Amino acid sequence: MTITTPAPTIFETVESEVRSYCRAWPVVFERASGSRLYDEQGRAYLDFFAGAGSLNYGHNNPVLKTALLEYIERDGITHALDMSTTAKRAFLETFQSTVLQPRGLPYKVMFPGPTGTNAVEAALKLARKVKGREAVVSFTNAFHGMSLGSLSVTGNAFKRAGAGIPLVHATPMPFDNYLGGRVPDFLWFERLLEDQGSGLNHPAAVIVETIQGEGGVNVARAEWLRGLANLCRRRDMLLIVDDVQMGCGRTGDFFSFEEAGIVPDIVTVSKSISGYGLPMALCLFKPELDVWEPGEHNGTFRGNNPAFVTATAALQAYWGDGALRQQTLVHGGRVESALRRLCADHERSGAGYRGRGLVWGIEFTDKQRAEAVCRKAFEHGLLVETSGPEGEVVKLLPPLTLTADELDEGLDLLARSVHETA
Amino acid sequence: MTITTPAPTIFETVESEVRSYCRAWPVVFERASGSRLYDEQGRAYLDFFAGAGSLNYGHNNPVLKTALLEYIERDGITHALDMSTTAKRAFLETFQSTVLQPRGLPYKVMFPGPTGTNAVEAALKLARKVKGREAVVSFTNAFHGMSLGSLSVTGNAFKRAGAGIPLVHATPMPFDNYLGGRVPDFLWFERLLEDQGSGLNHPAAVIVETIQGEGGVNVARAEWLRGLANLCRRRDMLLIVDDVQMGCGRTGDFFSFEEAGIVPDIVTVSKSISGYGLPMALCLFKPELDVWEPGEHNGTFRGNNPAFVTATAALQAYWGDGALRQQTLVHGGRVESALRRLCADHERSGAGYRGRGLVWGIEFTDKQRAEAVCRKAFEHGLLVETSGPEGEVVKLLPPLTLTADELDEGLDLLARSVHETA
Amino acid sequence: MTITTPAPTIFETVESEVRSYCRAWPVVFERASGSRLYDEQGRAYLDFFAGAGSLNYGHNNPVLKTALLEYIERDGITHALDMSTTAKRAFLETFQSTVLQPRGLPYKVMFPGPTGTNAVEAALKLARKVKGREAVVSFTNAFHGMSLGSLSVTGNAFKRAGAGIPLVHATPMPFDNYLGGRVPDFLWFERLLEDQGSGLNHPAAVIVETIQGEGGVNVARAEWLRGLANLCRRRDMLLIVDDVQMGCGRTGDFFSFEEAGIVPDIVTVSKSISGYGLPMALCLFKPELDVWEPGEHNGTFRGNNPAFVTATAALQAYWGDGALRQQTLVHGGRVESALRRLCADHERSGAGYRGRGLVWGIEFTDKQRAEAVCRKAFEHGLLVETSGPEGEVVKLLPPLTLTADELDEGLDLLARSVHETA
Amino acid sequence: MTITTPAPTIFETVESEVRSYCRAWPVVFERASGSRLYDEQGRAYLDFFAGAGSLNYGHNNPVLKTALLEYIERDGITHALDMSTTAKRAFLETFQSTVLQPRGLPYKVMFPGPTGTNAVEAALKLARKVKGREAVVSFTNAFHGMSLGSLSVTGNAFKRAGAGIPLVHATPMPFDNYLGGRVPDFLWFERLLEDQGSGLNHPAAVIVETIQGEGGVNVARAEWLRGLANLCRRRDMLLIVDDVQMGCGRTGDFFSFEEAGIVPDIVTVSKSISGYGLPMALCLFKPELDVWEPGEHNGTFRGNNPAFVTATAALQAYWGDGALRQQTLVHGGRVESALRRLCADHERSGAGYRGRGLVWGIEFTDKQRAEAVCRKAFEHGLLVETSGPEGEVVKLLPPLTLTADELDEGLDLLARSVHETA
Repeated sequence: MTITTPAPTIFETVESEVRSYCRAWPVVFERASGSRLYDEQGRAYLDFFAGAGSLNYGHNNPVLKTALLEYIERDGITHALDMSTTAKRAFLETFQSTVLQPRGLPYKVMFPGPTGTNAVEAALKLARKVKGREAVVSFTNAFHGMSLGSLSVTGNAFKRAGAGIPLVHATPMPFDNYLGGRVPDFLWFERLLEDQGSGLNHPAAVIVETIQGEGGVNVARAEWLRGLANLCRRRDMLLIVDDVQMGCGRTGDFFSFEEAGIVPDIVTVSKSISGYGLPMALCLFKPELDVWEPGEHNGTFRGNNPAFVTATAALQAYWGDGALRQQTLVHGGRVESALRRLCADHERSGAGYRGRGLVWGIEFTDKQRAEAVCRKAFEHGLLVETSGPEGEVVKLLPPLTLTADELDEGLDLLARSVHETA
Repeated sequence: MTITTPAPTIFETVESEVRSYCRAWPVVFERASGSRLYDEQGRAYLDFFAGAGSLNYGHNNPVLKTALLEYIERDGITHALDMSTTAKRAFLETFQSTVLQPRGLPYKVMFPGPTGTNAVEAALKLARKVKGREAVVSFTNAFHGMSLGSLSVTGNAFKRAGAGIPLVHATPMPFDNYLGGRVPDFLWFERLLEDQGSGLNHPAAVIVETIQGEGGVNVARAEWLRGLANLCRRRDMLLIVDDVQMGCGRTGDFFSFEEAGIVPDIVTVSKSISGYGLPMALCLFKPELDVWEPGEHNGTFRGNNPAFVTATAALQAYWGDGALRQQTLVHGGRVESALRRLCADHERSGAGYRGRGLVWGIEFTDKQRAEAVCRKAFEHGLLVETSGPEGEVVKLLPPLTLTADELDEGLDLLARSVHETA
Repeated sequence: MTITTPAPTIFETVESEVRSYCRAWPVVFERASGSRLYDEQGRAYLDFFAGAGSLNYGHNNPVLKTALLEYIERDGITHALDMSTTAKRAFLETFQSTVLQPRGLPYKVMFPGPTGTNAVEAALKLARKVKGREAVVSFTNAFHGMSLGSLSVTGNAFKRAGAGIPLVHATPMPFDNYLGGRVPDFLWFERLLEDQGSGLNHPAAVIVETIQGEGGVNVARAEWLRGLANLCRRRDMLLIVDDVQMGCGRTGDFFSFEEAGIVPDIVTVSKSISGYGLPMALCLFKPELDVWEPGEHNGTFRGNNPAFVTATAALQAYWGDGALRQQTLVHGGRVESALRRLCADHERSGAGYRGRGLVWGIEFTDKQRAEAVCRKAFEHGLLVETSGPEGEVVKLLPPLTLTADELDEGLDLLARSVHETA
Repeated sequence: MTITTPAPTIFETVESEVRSYCRAWPVVFERASGSRLYDEQGRAYLDFFAGAGSLNYGHNNPVLKTALLEYIERDGITHALDMSTTAKRAFLETFQSTVLQPRGLPYKVMFPGPTGTNAVEAALKLARKVKGREAVVSFTNAFHGMSLGSLSVTGNAFKRAGAGIPLVHATPMPFDNYLGGRVPDFLWFERLLEDQGSGLNHPAAVIVETIQGEGGVNVARAEWLRGLANLCRRRDMLLIVDDVQMGCGRTGDFFSFEEAGIVPDIVTVSKSISGYGLPMALCLFKPELDVWEPGEHNGTFRGNNPAFVTATAALQAYWGDGALRQQTLVHGGRVESALRRLCADHERSGAGYRGRGLVWGIEFTDKQRAEAVCRKAFEHGLLVETSGPEGEVVKLLPPLTLTADELDEGLDLLARSVHETA
């Protein structure tokens, strides 16, 4: 098959060099539906990328679409900052009844601006305000966003360098299994905290992803997360779980930390919360932490009401019962089996896999291989991207709503791509 | 007339204390059209606030609405990160032909994430990277956003305190007329720059609003802006104009700096760029500054394609000719006349006014007065908010598309509100 | 006359390139007495530099020398950290009876380590602890030392760049007459403080020199200093006067701020406090500010007892009556007359002078001239150095104890040097 | 025996609350000689503290005293900034011939100001300048000084809090044996460096003490130091050894790192370098690092010539041959034997000891015990102090020049003090 590279003149001449995905997938996309995108030549692409986790319910999900069209048609409020609206009320009520109450979570809900980085900035501000301390602990290979506060708790050296100022106030600790199991969990972190001479500024908070998506699909064990929650409680630090990419059902449960049985002090949510790919974010926190003054954090698009509408519809459609969760776990098992076989076939490539729910990563000994696999997959009509500090991991992030057939199709294309790059 | 305060239980019980506008306007809004919002009791409110400048074309503008519905209906791409899409191409082509080319502006276009603060973060990163220096100069009473980078160049002490860490790397300089005309423009700034012993770290960039909306509707003269641009050129600093609130026609011209005849090195645009209140932002810069590496700045919602669609429609509908600009200037003259009369009537209150295009501010000697006026206006069905460091200024920011009758109606309600709070 | 440049091999081969004075005065000094140094060829140099203000009582002053020899002979304590010693007691008693009590100054005395920069570091720490705020205001062309805390409040760009990290937490304000009298005193500073939107982090303290020695002999008027003290009081900021170079009688009074009638909250003293050129420093502060915990600031050489001995002897010899003060003022008048004539003779060179007590500066329009004058003076056997951000000022800092004949001799040599470089 | 507490009124009324040693040893010292101090009542104290390591050759060492008196008598230069003097030349020549050349060390010598913290500030500046990076790695329980730069690489939380600003740009790593041997050396540090996603800003330098005196007499193994030097070389970081307390023969060799066979890039020296307790410090570095501009770092007392004189005399008297080194090692063996017995006798107290050369620490399970032992020792006329993050270690730091009898006497008094506090 031949890929005809279009000549997207305007992108090259007018859009900034900062663009990246369009370089890996050099076509112009026109429409999308469910698990597939279509370029302007009409070619279909099976999407195992899902807007980097923003499209857990697929592209232009018809249930959400209907609600959205209806809302726009009837001139529902579009932009409202933090004014009270009927759309926001519906979302809050649904979020409370569908997500918070069934899980016994007492969280207050903050709309911090419609992006994940905004939610993280708000979470860090709040933690620092509550504790009156500046320092924060983050983890190796964490990714939390690109504005200065979020970037300071992000690990990637290339992205950090972009700040143009020294990023300070955050100290990295080893994520689960970072040292290959040779060191007891939290040995170093706890020692630093208990020792008055350690030189670690006492942190206001710890920020963690349960699975590091951008960092290479590094999966924290439930036991490790419980240890971390326990450490935070004993050492007077707030626990912030950044569930921007792993929340909203990606791991099966609505929140990725449910499996571990912990209740973080602060949770950030974004990406798939609107369900339709519309910008929206939440910062959730225990009620006793709600020490914000009115307007102490704000943002022009914190009241993106069309997103509230699709979010409400998504919660109602998918979280009223356990069906989606169940399906995700079943699909996940199917992926795991496929990857086990794949890695067995490629034992000599040192291929390894890891994941949970519907987020999986395949790592090769040869760090260039992952990019080659993704390139080959694109030729075969499958969208997958790399992750990890050197792009050494192929990351699978299909819509949760894909069918078993689509899943198998994607896994087959993936296997072909791995074989052909051997 | 009696205002029946609804009991928005869920907002009070579940939403964070950080909410603010809903306290000033304690109703639940349901729908909106053109210059008016409607609460769930059906009461109409004339909007002289316009989403803090995000709704320059009014609520749910029918031209944009049609394009948006059509796009959603046909399953156009919703979420695309920085993949190339037909919707983005249409926007880039229209922006180039309608905005950039007619003004001879050579800018590259970056989609930095869909909010103003994200555009500012990107602008600061880029300036620091280009110049290899950390320091930035901002201005007294500037407002640029709430994430850490943007907050460090924002003046408001209350908002700054929310950071929870010392905000550094930025030094404030006096905005135009800050010292009441008693000091020659840039005397202090230039002296600091020319003196090797001044203690000012040489700035990579200067970031400025041509009119400070949040800061109290402080209007920089064209002459002052030209002086600033000149100073930046002579002293090797990049000039960043933050046109998030004042751009997109608010002052008449598409960009607020056009009147001054300057060409900033970097421009941030957001709020009304999508036209429909949908989250979207741009960072524009001279091509020689486009030193970004692919992905060096990113963001999940930087490709909010429905916003590209409404943005394209708005540019086509309103910027193909000079009609909107002309109407804005005419409307502006009408506001100025009304405010002149109003302030003359209230000479004893020390009322003063200032503004340009369709952004105006009224300041009273009694700093509490502005809030009282806004409260009274709300009772009369007019939405206006305060601005300024102590909320001492009533800020008028009506949709540019309002009719002359609506303008007069609003100005009348405003005059009544001022009279009744005397 | 011919200068024979010695070949100080070991300095060039082993000592670091950081050395500076030895480049301007390329001889090897062997001994010194009163107002003169002698190189190893036996050539004498009249000293109008006085150890950058550390030798106000001349070199190896016989009164101090006798006390020092006697102390060393009898095995008095040399090194004591902050243990109590008889030598320290004698110093404290003498400092109290001779300096503090007669002036009604209530200061507690801290020995922060034996250098000026150490005293400044302690002063800044204390101010930040007392106020619980990070920010500090410094002045254009200030010099306070070379360790990171002191350097952050120092103006010189070359010295600041040496830090290797961005220097933050300090904001420069205009020193007296910085803007050529075109702006009312403190207009800008006070406006920033009163405006909640100014962007200036509320400072814990202001640090100022009454005369900026390194900065170019910039003399603050008494009226300006009183205005500053008043501003600090009204705006809840501590006033730190750095009297390291200008204290110990340099301006006539023991403290340079006495003339202005102000009582700073914190005062740093070093250089001539030991009187003999031995390392010693003090940090003085109002008793209510003495919130230090034991050992919260320390330093190995904070108890340099031989310095306490010479300091005590110097206070007893020179500050029991007003004779030295009187002589300094008379000498100062003599310098002023000489400089008036000199500058009148060199009107075309744009020569100007300024000073107080026995610190004076001559500035030329041609910025290279000052260095040429100093070089020529050295040829004539007179040591004077340049100061100012670009070394454009010849700085006179003779020992206070020089004779009228020595003063005239030095002024004549200076005049010759100026003439010969015309 | 009864201790009569003197009433040092002036210390309590005039000296700041920051004083600390005088609280532990509440007498007024008057003179000192060799290994003993005498208070004003004439009582003698055997000194196992030695000015916190500044008096390696004892108090008022007669050889040094003679040279000092002679120099002062003949009006040798006292204060010289960085002018060339005959005293400095003699020091440089002697340091080169006695210390540098025999060890094959190529160092350039910088006089950075006369205190250890000043040497550390200079070292950090230089490392940052050479590498163009801000970050520095320090170690748990490090102590490097109290000015802002040095404090940022110091571990003690109480001392760090005194800064009043967040201390940033430094990250702590585990010192040798910090994690009880459960983790391979440098596993964590190297992993952070090799991983582009670790979040550690690439350090310009690593600063380390070979034995942490203030941190609790923590002794790094030679093997660990070699590993560190190797890591620095492989990962492009400069290795700074802070030998302020452990240099000048304290461990036997002149430099404490000699035993490990490493050659640090930068070495700081102070405390005992002058030999007589006079303020003096050096910053040594490889010649290719000598990128200083003239005057880029300076300090008023960097040319404390009397200290150069005693330093020269000390080098000539003690470092021309290996006698002192040999004696220190023999003495050290004697201390070790005594501590082995002592800890065996107090096995139930969980007493442990560690050290090298003539620096030793005894740690008890009961953290209050160390202070009780020191108090009791003082009653018996022995000066010893505690160290460690919670003062849990008794630190022995006797003069190197003490006699075997004095050593035994002190060890006996120590044993008595331990027994009596059991």
